[in-house]
Amino acid sequence: MRIDILTVMPEMLESPLNCSILKRAQDKGLAEIHVHNLRDYTTDKHRKVDDYPFGGEAGMVMKIQPVDACISKLKAERNYDEVIFMTPDGKTFDQQMANSLSLLENIIILCGHYKGIDYRIREQFVTKEISIGDYVLTGGELPAACVTDAIVRLLPGVIGDEQSALSDSFQDNLLAPPVYTRPADYKGWKVPEVLLSGHEAKIAQWRLDQAMERTRRLRPDLLG
Amino acid sequence: MRIDILTVMPEMLESPLNCSILKRAQDKGLAEIHVHNLRDYTTDKHRKVDDYPFGGEAGMVMKIQPVDACISKLKAERNYDEVIFMTPDGKTFDQQMANSLSLLENIIILCGHYKGIDYRIREQFVTKEISIGDYVLTGGELPAACVTDAIVRLLPGVIGDEQSALSDSFQDNLLAPPVYTRPADYKGWKVPEVLLSGHEAKIAQWRLDQAMERTRRLRPDLLG
Repeated sequence: MRIDILTVMPEMLESPLNCSILKRAQDKGLAEIHVHNLRDYTTDKHRKVDDYPFGGEAGMVMKIQPVDACISKLKAERNYDEVIFMTPDGKTFDQQMANSLSLLENIIILCGHYKGIDYRIREQFVTKEISIGDYVLTGGELPAACVTDAIVRLLPGVIGDEQSALSDSFQDNLLAPPVYTRPADYKGWKVPEVLLSGHEAKIAQWRLDQAMERTRRLRPDLLG
Repeated sequence: MRIDILTVMPEMLESPLNCSILKRAQDKGLAEIHVHNLRDYTTDKHRKVDDYPFGGEAGMVMKIQPVDACISKLKAERNYDEVIFMTPDGKTFDQQMANSLSLLENIIILCGHYKGIDYRIREQFVTKEISIGDYVLTGGELPAACVTDAIVRLLPGVIGDEQSALSDSFQDNLLAPPVYTRPADYKGWKVPEVLLSGHEAKIAQWRLDQAMERTRRLRPDLLG
């Protein structure tokens, strides 16, 4: 899978995209992630990516021309399944959306910054608008990193143990049960007996009970 | 405001915390952000921060001891208003929560990684569990960066123009209206006439209408 991220602040994405699982996925050739600096696609001598909004309002707005130039160049090179714009008023990202996106070949993720992007970009180029939640961030860079992380870790071979991703929260509409590691007793705080019993069926039942109980208590909406 | 972030992967946070608004807030002395490598708080010679789960399951679990040592050290130095754990089964983060957290003095944000953290950490040390959305990421590092970004940009003086944060999506339960910048005509795609009219009252009315229309169409749930 190939992901092209368009941003005015490429330096913000450096460490998230080059650590941990995302680094491993790229090293193994399972994901190609390219970050494009929109400033490299400007045509004016000041390399301006933003300008004042029409109608007089606070904040700056990202210009249409550099985004057009970058997307057009990429589209001339290959087909893209989606051009995604990260925006707080997009469709709320969830695990099902991560699953679907992980099946695509090539996607573009456009990060907004400043007050927003020229709305014509959204009308003319964007095929999907995604929000990672109901809060406002400085730009779309962290959201793009989150979406990339959520998708790439689902690609076959990226996580060593396939089971690990399948038993995560949300994949079965249940929150994950509690996990524990050594020591069994830390300052008098003990691990539940059943986990030390070695009785596989009882442990499986305990985990399911805990997942159900936690979901009912904390996120009854997931149970429909 | 002071934010202490505890992680097993500090390198992942480097660029997000040192760019753009977060850099400016720290340079201006408006926010202090400290990243602590939990490996520095281990006591065994291999500096292990994770171990196998009890009950035999896929994935590794973060150990209780380094987290205990780091939190105890910090708490001995100052009072903390909250010890926040980033986890997909926490309370879903939103703008109201960002507003509240931005009023606190000192907070700790603990990032999970691997399969999860020893549940006793959550029972003994954590005062608030936050999720940035219904999806699973490699670790709590990106979520911690998102929460930090959402909070810090609300601190007085961080964003140049105070208006800018107040007119963001969600602050008034409305999605933001479209924004445009020059040129007024790009390849035949035009900016709405009213924004070029110079008529302030009409522009304000258009923006409100657009915000209402977009919210009704895209996020009717926000209107209650």
